[in-house]
Amino acid sequence: MTATTFDFAPLLPSGLPPAAARWTGLAKYSFVGGNNDPEQLPLTGLIDAVNAVMRREGRTLATYGLQSGPQGYLALRKFLTAKLKRDADISCSAEDILIVSGSLQALDLVNATLLARGDTVIIERDTYQGALNRLARLGINTVGIPLDRDGMRMDALADALADLKRRGITPKYIYTIPTVQNPTGTIMPETRRLELLRLAEQYGVPVFEDDCYADLAWDGKRPPAIYAMSKTANVIHIGSFSKSIAPALRVGFIVAPWAALSRILPMKTDAGSGALEQMVLAEYCVSHFETHVPALRRGLRAKLDTLMEALNEHFGTAAEFEEPKGGIFLWVKLPDHVDTMKLYQAALAAGVSINPGPEWSTDKAYAGSRLRLCFASPTQQQIREGIATLAEVCRNEFGVPARSSNKELRAEAAPR
Amino acid sequence: MTATTFDFAPLLPSGLPPAAARWTGLAKYSFVGGNNDPEQLPLTGLIDAVNAVMRREGRTLATYGLQSGPQGYLALRKFLTAKLKRDADISCSAEDILIVSGSLQALDLVNATLLARGDTVIIERDTYQGALNRLARLGINTVGIPLDRDGMRMDALADALADLKRRGITPKYIYTIPTVQNPTGTIMPETRRLELLRLAEQYGVPVFEDDCYADLAWDGKRPPAIYAMSKTANVIHIGSFSKSIAPALRVGFIVAPWAALSRILPMKTDAGSGALEQMVLAEYCVSHFETHVPALRRGLRAKLDTLMEALNEHFGTAAEFEEPKGGIFLWVKLPDHVDTMKLYQAALAAGVSINPGPEWSTDKAYAGSRLRLCFASPTQQQIREGIATLAEVCRNEFGVPARSSNKELRAEAAPR
Repeated sequence: MTATTFDFAPLLPSGLPPAAARWTGLAKYSFVGGNNDPEQLPLTGLIDAVNAVMRREGRTLATYGLQSGPQGYLALRKFLTAKLKRDADISCSAEDILIVSGSLQALDLVNATLLARGDTVIIERDTYQGALNRLARLGINTVGIPLDRDGMRMDALADALADLKRRGITPKYIYTIPTVQNPTGTIMPETRRLELLRLAEQYGVPVFEDDCYADLAWDGKRPPAIYAMSKTANVIHIGSFSKSIAPALRVGFIVAPWAALSRILPMKTDAGSGALEQMVLAEYCVSHFETHVPALRRGLRAKLDTLMEALNEHFGTAAEFEEPKGGIFLWVKLPDHVDTMKLYQAALAAGVSINPGPEWSTDKAYAGSRLRLCFASPTQQQIREGIATLAEVCRNEFGVPARSSNKELRAEAAPR
Repeated sequence: MTATTFDFAPLLPSGLPPAAARWTGLAKYSFVGGNNDPEQLPLTGLIDAVNAVMRREGRTLATYGLQSGPQGYLALRKFLTAKLKRDADISCSAEDILIVSGSLQALDLVNATLLARGDTVIIERDTYQGALNRLARLGINTVGIPLDRDGMRMDALADALADLKRRGITPKYIYTIPTVQNPTGTIMPETRRLELLRLAEQYGVPVFEDDCYADLAWDGKRPPAIYAMSKTANVIHIGSFSKSIAPALRVGFIVAPWAALSRILPMKTDAGSGALEQMVLAEYCVSHFETHVPALRRGLRAKLDTLMEALNEHFGTAAEFEEPKGGIFLWVKLPDHVDTMKLYQAALAAGVSINPGPEWSTDKAYAGSRLRLCFASPTQQQIREGIATLAEVCRNEFGVPARSSNKELRAEAAPR
């Protein structure tokens, strides 16, 4: 007798994402995901930190929240108050901070607090896929604002706000990544931040500032956070340790006025974020953050140079890009007829993973020939080889880049 | 000029939980929360483990998911396959397991996959507050099934299923904590598990088995998991390391047939659970789980004895309870006229925190004079002092327990 296998399908509500496929491993040349450079991971420092903090207060792991309450490990929040003041000119206390399980949880919590199906938000046209996917799943209308070399364009934002107002719609927030924007790598100058705040106040819309990549501005200087510049406490600010220390440590944070944070906090029903990860980060960062991050930036900057060289070498003028002001990704434009969704599939089959532009933009047509390349995780050699392979795939699929430049390259690259 | 402060209130969707109050610290005598015994935390073992695993593979922290893919750290999933076979008779592979950020995330993911507003689920009448709160927030109808000394009553379950069927309702799942039930501490015998599976199959309803406390059955023996006994792959099984190792390490797991897991996995959009916590647990548990847990159980059992003694001493016959078969909590009945919601408030003012019964039951009237006392975290002395204080508060508020028994006790306790 064979028992029938239970069928879960009839129980599933409508609108679920497709079923997952079995994981088949990372691509040989991986230019996706916010992964960091393993060689730059401060391993010794983290090991020293975990030993120190565990020996001193490891037994607090027996208590949810480490006796620090629902907002997260107090020592980490204290580090953040100092760090945010120094780097982003944010004046806040440990009570204004909620530690979360990576900035993705910050997005979830802020969305759960402010959004209902059918709501509208304003967002940069090209932006973080994780933000876009969440909004789509929640049934939120997104209005994408184009960017220029200084980030979100204020003329377009003013038009969008006026247009929405005419239609009786108050957007729930203006989401921006002003400091090393994902994927464009732009940094919004201080004057534009002021203009953004002026518009936000004029229209009664809060600003949702995602500063996840801000530590990776090449020169280590960045304008004050929009949160710091607001005179009306209308900004929710989020950040992360994923880019500055290690992405697999799932620790991010929200800074918000209590009027907002007191509503966000009850949505965090996970009994606290990982305590050991918070403890290690606090212990390590207090004494090492300021020296680690500049060294990390230098290493990332060198990989970016390799990536840009490889693109110039293998794609020639077929690949256009602005040099990012920091970060771990490059936003690349290929000739109009290149469909990066198709390129993505073909490249993956050749062992190269890329982020196709349409997944990182509210405007699928505009982004159709664009792609995002993450450069922190692959080695210099993998960057060169991976871009060479990508160019070959692109030529086979779309006839660009032209063969000549590539031939030269391959001959030159052969001995490596 | 004073700038106006931004008002977030008009932006909030309806149905949000109330704003959080500022955290004011843990109660002096805390009998709430699934906290564990800090003295029993295997600190040296965890420190050794973190050093070993960091030195060996710490650089994988630079990559989301530790190169193990979206289902979690492979070494931890491998440990679990062996542990689940040994302890719960579950045959599964690492591919059947999804590591999550504590069993609370497991609840969220399963709910997100199966439930839509207005759906109905079956649940034990007295059950975990975190499960009840989630269902309430999602707008789910709950049908509570009474328990006896052997857990969920099958006659009542059969009646409920038949009644729902008559009304044209197919419940989305039957949620049960069959092994050291929260809060009753019962263990469902194997024959009843078979009966539960028979009913579930008859009515086409999957079983959602929450085995979070199963490692803490006093005698170390427990019936096979319902998951293991199913012949039709109709069970989703979840578990946790919170009770066996440390609650502040936020690591739990889901075991499910791929038909379910492939739909659950895309709902986990957090870029993975905390990697360091997974690494430490895998490294520690492979060689120490089997010796640590029995020692932990002995310590918890001794604290339970102290709690039961203290209740007998201070409450006399006014406090009724069944001895739990394991775990970290005791479910106590006070005289009918005691309102434990009021007792909770008065006790908190006196420095004693308890879980009032109505928060742990679908039947607020039935549970109105009941409370849950967690005994793992307080010391033996705190248990004695806290219960003495609780009895005093209860007498002041409700006239029970009678003064005489308490007077004797207080005289006797004075020299301590």
